Amino acid sequence: MKKYLKEINGETWLVEDERDNMKLYYRIKEVISSKESTFQKVDIIDSYDFGRCLVLDGVMQTTELDGYIYNEMISHIPVVTHKKPEKVLVIGGGDCGVVNELIKYKELKAIDMVEIDRLVVEESIKYIPSIAGDASKDERVNFVFDDGVNFVKNKYKYYDIAIVDSSDPVGPGEVLFSEDFYVSLRDCLKDDGMMVCQSQSPIFYKDVLKKTRGILKNHFPVVKTYKATVPSYPGGMWSFTLASLKYDPKDGDIQKLAKDTKYINNEIFKSCFSLPNFTKKDLELL
Amino acid sequence: MKKYLKEINGETWLVEDERDNMKLYYRIKEVISSKESTFQKVDIIDSYDFGRCLVLDGVMQTTELDGYIYNEMISHIPVVTHKKPEKVLVIGGGDCGVVNELIKYKELKAIDMVEIDRLVVEESIKYIPSIAGDASKDERVNFVFDDGVNFVKNKYKYYDIAIVDSSDPVGPGEVLFSEDFYVSLRDCLKDDGMMVCQSQSPIFYKDVLKKTRGILKNHFPVVKTYKATVPSYPGGMWSFTLASLKYDPKDGDIQKLAKDTKYINNEIFKSCFSLPNFTKKDLELL
Repeated sequence: MKKYLKEINGETWLVEDERDNMKLYYRIKEVISSKESTFQKVDIIDSYDFGRCLVLDGVMQTTELDGYIYNEMISHIPVVTHKKPEKVLVIGGGDCGVVNELIKYKELKAIDMVEIDRLVVEESIKYIPSIAGDASKDERVNFVFDDGVNFVKNKYKYYDIAIVDSSDPVGPGEVLFSEDFYVSLRDCLKDDGMMVCQSQSPIFYKDVLKKTRGILKNHFPVVKTYKATVPSYPGGMWSFTLASLKYDPKDGDIQKLAKDTKYINNEIFKSCFSLPNFTKKDLELL
Repeated sequence: MKKYLKEINGETWLVEDERDNMKLYYRIKEVISSKESTFQKVDIIDSYDFGRCLVLDGVMQTTELDGYIYNEMISHIPVVTHKKPEKVLVIGGGDCGVVNELIKYKELKAIDMVEIDRLVVEESIKYIPSIAGDASKDERVNFVFDDGVNFVKNKYKYYDIAIVDSSDPVGPGEVLFSEDFYVSLRDCLKDDGMMVCQSQSPIFYKDVLKKTRGILKNHFPVVKTYKATVPSYPGGMWSFTLASLKYDPKDGDIQKLAKDTKYINNEIFKSCFSLPNFTKKDLELL
């Protein structure tokens, strides 16, 4: 048994103990699949509280209970903000949840999803259809199994929207938080394009958020941070940062927001940009 | 050593394992005080990630890292919503954090805090001054060490605002979620009074939220649920419900909101009433 799976009194628990000061134990019903790719250990588990979950190297990535919150917030906000989005790039997002949100918009013509680890995509489609949905069947979706950093270097003024659905800024995910990467990403956007990334917990990783915003402000005229509550992420409160070459989310045409969502709605779209005082202070917005 | 404190490799951890499907381990620097009252075990610990914490029967109640989020949201919203609040009742709230927010408003003339367990108040004032603040020194504050349910039965049309800062609806806290109690509470309010309570996690305890709202709607014309993210509570997303005999928070005079806050500000006041689609569906608001 892998070291992050423990038997206690005949029950199986997933143990997240990569953080120094906090450990989380999730009671699980069943390990549905347990494989290993060139990049990482990939497990699909069925848990009591969170439903089916994608676990990479022992860390919970997406759960049926709340995966849609993250996926909706990182995808609907840019699509609604852009006046005429057609070509979208997704970096990472192996669980296919982001792409599954994007295909709700008929106006999108092409969605390129660049994920380094094919196994994550295959396992997610096979075992967590409630998150991956019909993403793989939509003919507008093009899967590219490649390194996102290299991929964006070969595109120039091509995309309307780029979504960076990265894991944490440690190990393989670290480069997706670097200035070089954000510059390449800006260059692959059309003149009125925009990008969005998850910018970590404004409580436990406020330095990451602050640094990410600082870099983006060097290269984009419009930089807006927004928040959502994602229960399975440490601290629950999560930040996203949108960096745009032209359009501002305050001018987004809210009427086009997809209706078949579980978290986001018109009010959430407008209110997610309201940040708590402590975050405003950290970001020098007060 | 109490059973919720564990030694692992020479380090001490607080173990929250009262939930069936999830256990939380917090690494702690020091157990500052460990006592027992007639009602419960009362510990003050100093933790690595959350600072000093009040722990009752092994369950984290308030932490320095995020206690202010809960305390600000349950107190500033009713004070700003009411046109002329003078007398406020707080049921529970032994950590004194709610009272410490209320004293920021000069217009309040009297604050009665009814807490059943004197030890909780004493320990909080002594060991967590960053939460309890100067609450105990303000001459408008009157501590009553009594059972909240009995206390409200003896008051009639007396208070402008009642704040129910209860623990979870199990054990001693259960009665604070009952219809009888809410009726007594309504009767102790003036004709234009209002009450607010924490109505639990809209994800993990949505039945409690739904039931609480249902009861309050039987007895108050204005019932509004709002949300905040409290990292140390399960799932992070937390709900509060305001039940008012006259005033509606949408007409609140936002200009009077206290400025020395860490979480709430004018935008948060307005946006906290925006609920996610899944909660609207659960509450039949869609």
